[in-house]
Amino acid sequence: MNNTLNALLTPKSIVLVGASADINKLNGRPLHNLLRDGYAGRLYAVNPKYQDIAGIPCYPDLDSLPEIPELGVVAVAAERAIGVVAELGRRGVRIAIVFSSGFAEVGPEGRRLEQELVATARAHNIRICGPNNLGLINAFERMPLTFSQYADQPAAPGPVAFVTQSGAFGTAVATRARALGIGFGYFVSTGNEADITAVEVLDEILGDPRVTVTVVYLEGMRDGARLAAVADKALSLGKPLVVIKVGRFAAGKRAAISHTGSLAGEDAVFDGVIRQHGVIRAYDEVHALDLAAAFAACPVPPAGGIGLITMSGGAGVLMSDCAEELRLEVPVLSPHTQASLKSILPAFAATGNPVDVTAQGAVDMSVFGPTLNLVLADPNIGICIVWLQHMHRVADAMVSLFAQTRRDVAKPFIVCWLYAPEAAVAKLREAGVCVVEGTQRSIDAAAGLMEYGEARRRAIAGGRTGLPRGWQPAAAHSDKKSEVVPSIEAMGLLSAYGFGMVASRLAADPNQAAQSAEILGYPVAVKIESPDLPHKTEVGGVRLGLTSKEEVAAAASEVLAAARQHAPNAAIAGVLVQKMATPATEIVLGVRRDPSFGPVLMLGLGGVFIEVLKDVVFASAPVSEADAAFMLQRLRGRAILDGVRGRPGVDRASLTKAICALSQFALDHPEVAELDLNPVFAGPDGAVAVDWLMTRDSSR
Amino acid sequence: MNNTLNALLTPKSIVLVGASADINKLNGRPLHNLLRDGYAGRLYAVNPKYQDIAGIPCYPDLDSLPEIPELGVVAVAAERAIGVVAELGRRGVRIAIVFSSGFAEVGPEGRRLEQELVATARAHNIRICGPNNLGLINAFERMPLTFSQYADQPAAPGPVAFVTQSGAFGTAVATRARALGIGFGYFVSTGNEADITAVEVLDEILGDPRVTVTVVYLEGMRDGARLAAVADKALSLGKPLVVIKVGRFAAGKRAAISHTGSLAGEDAVFDGVIRQHGVIRAYDEVHALDLAAAFAACPVPPAGGIGLITMSGGAGVLMSDCAEELRLEVPVLSPHTQASLKSILPAFAATGNPVDVTAQGAVDMSVFGPTLNLVLADPNIGICIVWLQHMHRVADAMVSLFAQTRRDVAKPFIVCWLYAPEAAVAKLREAGVCVVEGTQRSIDAAAGLMEYGEARRRAIAGGRTGLPRGWQPAAAHSDKKSEVVPSIEAMGLLSAYGFGMVASRLAADPNQAAQSAEILGYPVAVKIESPDLPHKTEVGGVRLGLTSKEEVAAAASEVLAAARQHAPNAAIAGVLVQKMATPATEIVLGVRRDPSFGPVLMLGLGGVFIEVLKDVVFASAPVSEADAAFMLQRLRGRAILDGVRGRPGVDRASLTKAICALSQFALDHPEVAELDLNPVFAGPDGAVAVDWLMTRDSSR
Repeated sequence: MNNTLNALLTPKSIVLVGASADINKLNGRPLHNLLRDGYAGRLYAVNPKYQDIAGIPCYPDLDSLPEIPELGVVAVAAERAIGVVAELGRRGVRIAIVFSSGFAEVGPEGRRLEQELVATARAHNIRICGPNNLGLINAFERMPLTFSQYADQPAAPGPVAFVTQSGAFGTAVATRARALGIGFGYFVSTGNEADITAVEVLDEILGDPRVTVTVVYLEGMRDGARLAAVADKALSLGKPLVVIKVGRFAAGKRAAISHTGSLAGEDAVFDGVIRQHGVIRAYDEVHALDLAAAFAACPVPPAGGIGLITMSGGAGVLMSDCAEELRLEVPVLSPHTQASLKSILPAFAATGNPVDVTAQGAVDMSVFGPTLNLVLADPNIGICIVWLQHMHRVADAMVSLFAQTRRDVAKPFIVCWLYAPEAAVAKLREAGVCVVEGTQRSIDAAAGLMEYGEARRRAIAGGRTGLPRGWQPAAAHSDKKSEVVPSIEAMGLLSAYGFGMVASRLAADPNQAAQSAEILGYPVAVKIESPDLPHKTEVGGVRLGLTSKEEVAAAASEVLAAARQHAPNAAIAGVLVQKMATPATEIVLGVRRDPSFGPVLMLGLGGVFIEVLKDVVFASAPVSEADAAFMLQRLRGRAILDGVRGRPGVDRASLTKAICALSQFALDHPEVAELDLNPVFAGPDGAVAVDWLMTRDSSR
Repeated sequence: MNNTLNALLTPKSIVLVGASADINKLNGRPLHNLLRDGYAGRLYAVNPKYQDIAGIPCYPDLDSLPEIPELGVVAVAAERAIGVVAELGRRGVRIAIVFSSGFAEVGPEGRRLEQELVATARAHNIRICGPNNLGLINAFERMPLTFSQYADQPAAPGPVAFVTQSGAFGTAVATRARALGIGFGYFVSTGNEADITAVEVLDEILGDPRVTVTVVYLEGMRDGARLAAVADKALSLGKPLVVIKVGRFAAGKRAAISHTGSLAGEDAVFDGVIRQHGVIRAYDEVHALDLAAAFAACPVPPAGGIGLITMSGGAGVLMSDCAEELRLEVPVLSPHTQASLKSILPAFAATGNPVDVTAQGAVDMSVFGPTLNLVLADPNIGICIVWLQHMHRVADAMVSLFAQTRRDVAKPFIVCWLYAPEAAVAKLREAGVCVVEGTQRSIDAAAGLMEYGEARRRAIAGGRTGLPRGWQPAAAHSDKKSEVVPSIEAMGLLSAYGFGMVASRLAADPNQAAQSAEILGYPVAVKIESPDLPHKTEVGGVRLGLTSKEEVAAAASEVLAAARQHAPNAAIAGVLVQKMATPATEIVLGVRRDPSFGPVLMLGLGGVFIEVLKDVVFASAPVSEADAAFMLQRLRGRAILDGVRGRPGVDRASLTKAICALSQFALDHPEVAELDLNPVFAGPDGAVAVDWLMTRDSSR
């Protein structure tokens, strides 16, 4: 528990500087809301215009306050806010919410003002949430400290915490959640995040035992490495973390740059790293709230596929389609389950999966109930969806049945009821049963639960449970100058980690090159070796498939001449002579220092997969073997790993080991700025890097 | 107008055979519903147990009826239904709905019964809708001739017609539609489709001027070619056709086979052909109803991208993300539009696209209204989405503004209101404004409108407007024996259509092969030519890159020997000598006779694209140049057509011409059963087929 952050979320006393008696004003509404809901802490207002506001004592200035409040709220114009923050700090208040707008969100002038705000806060030892935010709600403590329209009605507390960088979007999501009966225990708007970030707030909230699910809406990210650490913490606590993060594509990015003060990191890195750490990503607010409701209601699914129970054969096929598109397994039920189902269902009912109970079976609870229990009990099944059409005539019986199953069975199930009576939905929610309207949406929710279950198992396999690793700020490499590491040195560094590298020797001249080739054996490749010519092919610096020392010597002469011609001033170390590796499936591996996430690994498939389809995945170091296997599984072209066109398959075990070795290397060698292994030839006997480019900070 | 089908949808008189007085029974509800809603036609019941049912005269048998009704309804057990159908036919009734279940849906015995039902109906000159269906509703005529629970309340007529193969699914969709205020003018359940299909019903309904949008739910398809013709008709009438079709993947298919009597065609063919013909495919019922509502409310968008207006920068980025994922263009607004926006919006508002009016601009209608009009007027914009968060305080002003814009502006816009007041939604729907809750859903709806607009323009470009082509049943080729067409003959057939084929000559022996090579020029390839060895590589029957007559003669000897060794009984015509073509981008083209759609063309990219990613698209012949361009655009790996890895781009114009030539060839040569052109080398100078395999019906 962080005492300062705790004072933001659960303050025992609050002062509102610039509070108004007009509840239609944004500086009037928070006080009104706090009084309406019966906040139990001590409240003070500061405004020379009033003596009291609705019974709350109002002081002319901070010095007149009878105590030092735990939390300050600044509700004055931007130009005055900095002075108020300084004053709060001087008086010993350690944290403040700054509602004031007119900072980074309005352009360069505002950005300068925001920098001054941050500097002032630091100088006065006070943390800041905001500026330009809506405040927060701690519904457990009846504390609607916000002017968001969401607080126009009291918030019923629930196990979901919601942290949002956008006030407008957050308000819309929260009001929608309320309409769906999803209780937000916390609603926190972090605004411009001049100081405190959504991730930091999340970290603090995870410590509250009343919260079991967290949802965060992000527009930009500074502290990716901390997000990864917080995600690990959430995973080890068994509290699912759902993220909506905008800026998935370039067009989105264009808007993000013009909108927020922080530059969104490359989305592929973000996406890869958060999934590695068990974060479930939502594509929009509907998806996020479906996931929140599902996580709040359902146990974590064990390993296994999805069981589909319908009363309409077509709906079963439709659900299978949606599941297949998301690559969820719809396994055939075990012979035992099928035999049991056949003994209770009509003769023409489908029992394989999807299970179609038929219209007849759907209205008979003595058939329907056992069906759900049998499918949930199947060892191949991790989660079920029960698809219902209209069913108003048996709605009460359905509700009882589902509530009973929820109590009796540890595996999760989702009720996809296309048009349910409102009362039935309310009763089901009360009984902790997850209800989703819409076929695709129910599959999306189940997919999130399954992904989370897999992440938990991966974390256990990778040893990422128990206490999470501490968070270390990522080292920023962007402004450092880097230099190319000589190929033989890079080979030595990587070989020490057991990474397979094609046998290579440096030769100063054609004569030495020929000698090297004789030692290596034929065929060989000859490549120019120069720190100034990292892209060898472009300067005519590569010759492949040489089969005699004469060919090698000639090739060496030629590439040296070509390099000198292309780049007369380049420092040339000689040529690299490499034994030709047997062609195999081309893999691309890489390491980069992400400004937000620190050392990240890239995995891709070579050729058109990377060049045309951008088929790459990222993860942050350390990468466990389970993480590496997950990376392979996420490649769109992964089928190629099993061998195509008569080419043998790739040994996945040795490939995952190679990825882990690279991860360890990246952690042990922070001076290495970038590393490309392109291509790596992977086959049934292992993986070997054929070409590589390593750079390191020249400042080290 | 088809008189028989017209009697199904708009009968002036109906007889219900097996009608019951008990409205809780499925044979009692239709009569009850018809009386409740005030159906104006003449109604008769047949049941020896009653004299009348609720005032409707009830007769002991059909012979006692005072007239020959236009439509019969059979509500008796399966074993009696066949006799009733025969009797109706004998009495001169030309069409009947058969509610009875216990036919193909219950297994082999039921299938035999259904065959008997069809044979009986044919023999007695009566058409059948069903069996195992729920009946239909013609809401315009207050005719709820169904026992579906959807008819438990009267159906308010509207411009959307809905035809469904599944009763349970259809009922759920219809009740949901009613809750959303979407009026179904027709609701038709076609059940097992022993005779009349959903597509045939659709064809008839399209003639009703009160219907402007059609939605169909399909589980299986017999009459694909007719669906394509009906889609053309719908497109030329400007009535969008939305399809939910289950069985997109193998797992789905498994369920479909066990569920319906008809085998779903290969989904890739279905998907390609319907999109070619302007059908909009929905992924589930939520999507289908969003599309129906959007088509009912919105004009067809002109060419152009999507304009996004928000009050939250993040929401704009989120929408851009969703749009980008669907490959919708989010164009930067014109300088003129941007300048106009800057003059009315706050200084820090984003004006590029997405347009962020900011919280301040969102509550000021004198800002918000002109913004929407300016963006809609931009020449780069075809459609707009206005994203609103809570906005309850200015809801009435918003409603007036949108209603006004709907009246004034011909371009479509969708209001994505995350949490709208119910009254506001009702008023907007009344004013013909499309409202969708949910960010992704609003983008999905806009994408459907844009896809439809493009299909209309493609149809105009391809001459597929005006009166649609008539429908011809597809010739079934599945049970015919086919033979391989000699390569040189196939080359001649295709060359006649202007299709580029690599120069090839047939040689009977090694000596002739060498002579052929001398004529063709080097390098050449030598391939075994035998109708019994269509897969030449597998038998060692291919040699490439031969550069002298000696090499050619030796290669010819070798492939002939290899072929004789592999297949001693194969008829061998000799070897094919082919000039080697310059390697270029590999394309795969093909023709097949689809049992449902008739002649269809396949287009794919070679190598891993087709083998690993199954990246192929289909269209049915005739394929216009606009259709061919659309096929190219739908390839996932289409970026490769623009050139990668230093390879030049492909001339798309000559490739589209080649596809059209193949389409014409397929139409002119119905005896050709299958044709593979794999690979076709496509480059900046055109496309040339390097290898091909053609088969034809040996019975011709």
